[in-house]
Amino acid sequence: MTESRTLWWDDALGGIRYIEQTLLPSEYTIIDCTSVDRLATAIRRLEIRGAPALGVAGAFGVALAARSCAAKTFPEFCALVEKDAALLRSTRPTAINLAWGIDRVMARMIRKKDIVSAQKAALDEAEQIAREDTDCCHAIGKHGALLLPDTCTVLTHCNAGALACSSWGTALGVIRSAIQAKKKVNVISCETRPLLQGARLTAWELSRDAIPVTVITDSMAAHFMRAGTIDAVVVGADRITEDAVFNKIGTYMHAICARHHEIPFYVAAPISTFDRIKRESDVIIEERGRDEVTTMGNRVFVPPEAAVKNPAFDATPMELVTAIITENGIIRPPFAMDDVFPDKD
Amino acid sequence: MTESRTLWWDDALGGIRYIEQTLLPSEYTIIDCTSVDRLATAIRRLEIRGAPALGVAGAFGVALAARSCAAKTFPEFCALVEKDAALLRSTRPTAINLAWGIDRVMARMIRKKDIVSAQKAALDEAEQIAREDTDCCHAIGKHGALLLPDTCTVLTHCNAGALACSSWGTALGVIRSAIQAKKKVNVISCETRPLLQGARLTAWELSRDAIPVTVITDSMAAHFMRAGTIDAVVVGADRITEDAVFNKIGTYMHAICARHHEIPFYVAAPISTFDRIKRESDVIIEERGRDEVTTMGNRVFVPPEAAVKNPAFDATPMELVTAIITENGIIRPPFAMDDVFPDKD
Repeated sequence: MTESRTLWWDDALGGIRYIEQTLLPSEYTIIDCTSVDRLATAIRRLEIRGAPALGVAGAFGVALAARSCAAKTFPEFCALVEKDAALLRSTRPTAINLAWGIDRVMARMIRKKDIVSAQKAALDEAEQIAREDTDCCHAIGKHGALLLPDTCTVLTHCNAGALACSSWGTALGVIRSAIQAKKKVNVISCETRPLLQGARLTAWELSRDAIPVTVITDSMAAHFMRAGTIDAVVVGADRITEDAVFNKIGTYMHAICARHHEIPFYVAAPISTFDRIKRESDVIIEERGRDEVTTMGNRVFVPPEAAVKNPAFDATPMELVTAIITENGIIRPPFAMDDVFPDKD
Repeated sequence: MTESRTLWWDDALGGIRYIEQTLLPSEYTIIDCTSVDRLATAIRRLEIRGAPALGVAGAFGVALAARSCAAKTFPEFCALVEKDAALLRSTRPTAINLAWGIDRVMARMIRKKDIVSAQKAALDEAEQIAREDTDCCHAIGKHGALLLPDTCTVLTHCNAGALACSSWGTALGVIRSAIQAKKKVNVISCETRPLLQGARLTAWELSRDAIPVTVITDSMAAHFMRAGTIDAVVVGADRITEDAVFNKIGTYMHAICARHHEIPFYVAAPISTFDRIKRESDVIIEERGRDEVTTMGNRVFVPPEAAVKNPAFDATPMELVTAIITENGIIRPPFAMDDVFPDKD
């Protein structure tokens, strides 16, 4: 039996349990995590990944920090938990949801006056974030499903599925909701080099739900667009500024090719993915290690003399985005951040 | 000491010797090949690959068939060698050079009247094709080098290098000739999924010549184009019709992205790559096996329930090609085949 959630709080454990995503699809393993250091490693190693899931992981991470804090006074408690929060924030610089989840729990917690009620508030808020995340995905799915034809083939990149969220998924949530609404949807999943989240995770979770999925290399997408095979592209996002969508490396190339073939290019993401303040040029794109590109399993296939680049994300300028699918409805660029966050501070 | 040729006839062996390209860069192995069946397997397995190299391999393949033929009469000899030639032609359907090399040796051979002189003619013609291939690459290099800025970064895909030819290379020949002409050229080599010829072969042969090379995943090309890193794209070709360039899967996506960023997109290929008769729609794109996409080294990373597509090539419409670099000079589309083959039957 496989778990339908990706990560959750376990009271008996007094910590977080999650599906270890680097081992999929060959091994399905649930990890017990009871320390912030272990959680930070899990996020860095992409055992937990996906923008919304990182928000939930960050939130539970603060709850875990609060629970395991040995401080005697409330100010000391707050300082120590903030230190753990800073460690967690530093693990992945590009996805905004991680910091968003951490900050939201911190904000609720420090309004308390004592350690015990702060610990309880942290866990309550984190559980709330996890619930909201699932609700968000279902709302995104409902709005997005209306955009898809009754019979269609959707191309997606990386994994913006249940494994990237608490459950259901953003881009794959749109597909699941469309199927629930009796539409016939085939999925083409780009393998997503270097870490193959499309081949390993998207193909796995769709197959598990008996949704027809075909894996291709990233370089084949344009070929199938030209052949008329693809009706829409739907991807997730790690951060959305007013001028660009940051998502897994390769997304930008799909957006250009979709425009070239006049295929709609949709981004499915919760409002928590939007960055109210920054512009594209302010955002740091995480550069990851050489080994992710040069090595697979037991094989090294790049000679040591050759240099390697490994940006984990790219930026797709808003002009190439047909629509952004959020829990509040469809946003069609160009848009102003003030319209995304009306009246809220 | 490494061999500067990719494949050649060895008199003492009475057969073909070649660099086994599936093992690079971790193992450098020269294979002795003395049967047509073994050669057919080598071509199918991509131990020998690259359009011009396939032309040379086909040519030497006919010489090998002629040499090892046990026929007693000349008509029987011709029939048996043609049977071997048909086997070799069937190994890869898309690259035109393979059939071209085979047919050229067959045509010269069957004009003879007896087995011994036919055997000699076959080997002479194959050696001539191998020499011409090297001369072609140097001529392509000379013409192409003039198109590159004095200091530039060139993006290439797959391997259109010495390993894809007798020596020097087509796309990489342009780069080698530019460097010989004192230009400063950096190369970005797309890894080229699924079989990683860019990571394994292009990075290896450029590093061996101390030409600076950076390996990226195929999905990163557009990101670096947008960043202003790339001044030109230069690729090889497996077949050129009047309306399209057939080359390794992924080439089309680079052409679209190059056009989007107003970066010149060059194809470097000998005249033997041009197909005088067929249009794009007449050409069969080879579909290769599932395992190439799903498996690497000891790891299977696509779940068995998921479907897989693996077209080995794509077609880039001529509108996206800035220029084709041939041994006879630069061809700027649109062009007519009659201009490529003037007065020749």
